[in-house]
Amino acid sequence: MSTAADLEGEDRALAELFAILASEKHPALVVPPGHDCAVLSLPAASPGRVIVTTDVLVDGVHFDLAECGPEAAAGKSLLVNLSDLAAAAAVPVGFEVGVVLPRDRDPDLLVRLARGLATVANRYDCPCAGGDTNVADGPLTLAVTACGAVGPGGVVTRTGARVGDVLSVTGPLGGSRGGRHLDFVPRLAEARVLAERGVPHAMMDLSDGLSRDLPRLCRASNVGAEVEGARVPVHPDAQEATRGATPLEAALHDGEDFELLLAHAPLAGSERDALRAAGVDLTEIGRVLDAAEGILLRTPAGSRPLDPQGYDHFLRE
Amino acid sequence: MSTAADLEGEDRALAELFAILASEKHPALVVPPGHDCAVLSLPAASPGRVIVTTDVLVDGVHFDLAECGPEAAAGKSLLVNLSDLAAAAAVPVGFEVGVVLPRDRDPDLLVRLARGLATVANRYDCPCAGGDTNVADGPLTLAVTACGAVGPGGVVTRTGARVGDVLSVTGPLGGSRGGRHLDFVPRLAEARVLAERGVPHAMMDLSDGLSRDLPRLCRASNVGAEVEGARVPVHPDAQEATRGATPLEAALHDGEDFELLLAHAPLAGSERDALRAAGVDLTEIGRVLDAAEGILLRTPAGSRPLDPQGYDHFLRE
Repeated sequence: MSTAADLEGEDRALAELFAILASEKHPALVVPPGHDCAVLSLPAASPGRVIVTTDVLVDGVHFDLAECGPEAAAGKSLLVNLSDLAAAAAVPVGFEVGVVLPRDRDPDLLVRLARGLATVANRYDCPCAGGDTNVADGPLTLAVTACGAVGPGGVVTRTGARVGDVLSVTGPLGGSRGGRHLDFVPRLAEARVLAERGVPHAMMDLSDGLSRDLPRLCRASNVGAEVEGARVPVHPDAQEATRGATPLEAALHDGEDFELLLAHAPLAGSERDALRAAGVDLTEIGRVLDAAEGILLRTPAGSRPLDPQGYDHFLRE
Repeated sequence: MSTAADLEGEDRALAELFAILASEKHPALVVPPGHDCAVLSLPAASPGRVIVTTDVLVDGVHFDLAECGPEAAAGKSLLVNLSDLAAAAAVPVGFEVGVVLPRDRDPDLLVRLARGLATVANRYDCPCAGGDTNVADGPLTLAVTACGAVGPGGVVTRTGARVGDVLSVTGPLGGSRGGRHLDFVPRLAEARVLAERGVPHAMMDLSDGLSRDLPRLCRASNVGAEVEGARVPVHPDAQEATRGATPLEAALHDGEDFELLLAHAPLAGSERDALRAAGVDLTEIGRVLDAAEGILLRTPAGSRPLDPQGYDHFLRE
């Protein structure tokens, strides 16, 4: 594992946090911090396993409340957690929500947030279990913790990618900030199919951009990787160059795609057809290398390091 | 159950939220929103029950960062959730933490928060399972969700108080804001003993003051109550009248005591002795009445409604 000093931005912050908080492995942590979800083992008197994940979304950082409205902001706060559950191939069970309301707000803000949460909660059969509301001098903040159960294919983590594996994604990348980041389909159904068939050796959801997320999967699995630029599927939202970025750069760096990235053994054509028939259309984008080879992007101009340029709010300060 | 229109402040906000979010009872919600904790039933493929609770703490509302320091603020953010687990007689299993860091902060803030969390996590054997960190233009915000397992005495909720029950608390009340609110003992051990002996018909932790919390327990159980002023144990921190409040007023209204309030059948002297020997020293403060009688405070001057005056940040706007 990397030490905090090797990292930057949010990865470094989380590494510092967990270096202190999780210095000794606890037997209840079946899957410890460092993946999309953790898995907790419940004690023998009332056994079971629960999968948990948390995301905190803040107005002005993860959404623009004035622009998108409360329903979409709240919907996103649950969707991003469902996407984390998908990365673990978990089955959503319920969620908790903590809301910090700004003092200066529309009187119907809370009700509209509740409606946005309810829409997504109903869509994915993931009921609200409880919550906490506060008022403070700050931006609207939505803290969601989703709980899931172990899916029929077991738990998938970021650990387990092997040299020679193929890297695939479940859909096209880039341009999400045009609006798609607010209302997307968390890949729960696809993850379930993949896990039931034992396909993913390692999996995560793409929240901060392939160039920032792939290194996380590689660190967790202690491998390197090469992405073939020509194979990265570019979303229609990013087909035109914007803000000086090419479509490929948008697909690599924009973030908030919420597609799944997975490492798996090469698939035979028949296996690929069977997955497609089950609703999972994987696009191969590269392969897993030895850790010493680093993380590379191959383009017609040659192979070069794939530098992280995805969104990191710690690095935007 | 009350409707949102009957309520005020945070109770009203939560009622509005859950009226929309939890309009239909979901089979996964063994204990739905409206108690200190919710209980989620995990699906048959991977069965079990998990107890969850969330509290969001904000600088300037729940602590004063400049005064108390990051370690105490973070410690409190976990302690208040452990106190909610205690109210359900749950066994702590692990927690998730979401941190929103202010842009203008000391460089060691995150590390000091982690140390504060780790101290409490180790003390109560409740490891950090994961989390999320952000930077935003706002106050330090700490969102903790604690997960627990069903304790050996089963789950206790706010529902179940019966007319004729005694109301008791696990310790003295008032004056917590002098400093005790930052570092207290969540009554996990006491709750376990009480639940194993089947004592509590209904239970909750006193976070917002007896005068604000008792009505919540009464609403959930559809009962009334009478508190005998002379029996309410006043904490040494509140023995002197401060800010124009008498010691009794401080004990009734200050809040953040984090003692347990429970309704139970009258105890024989031998039962009380056995509880004391097991480390639980209950103080009887009143009794459960029919709902129509309301919630009363009896003093030498007579019996009058016990008006909620505990802390409510919605009402402080």
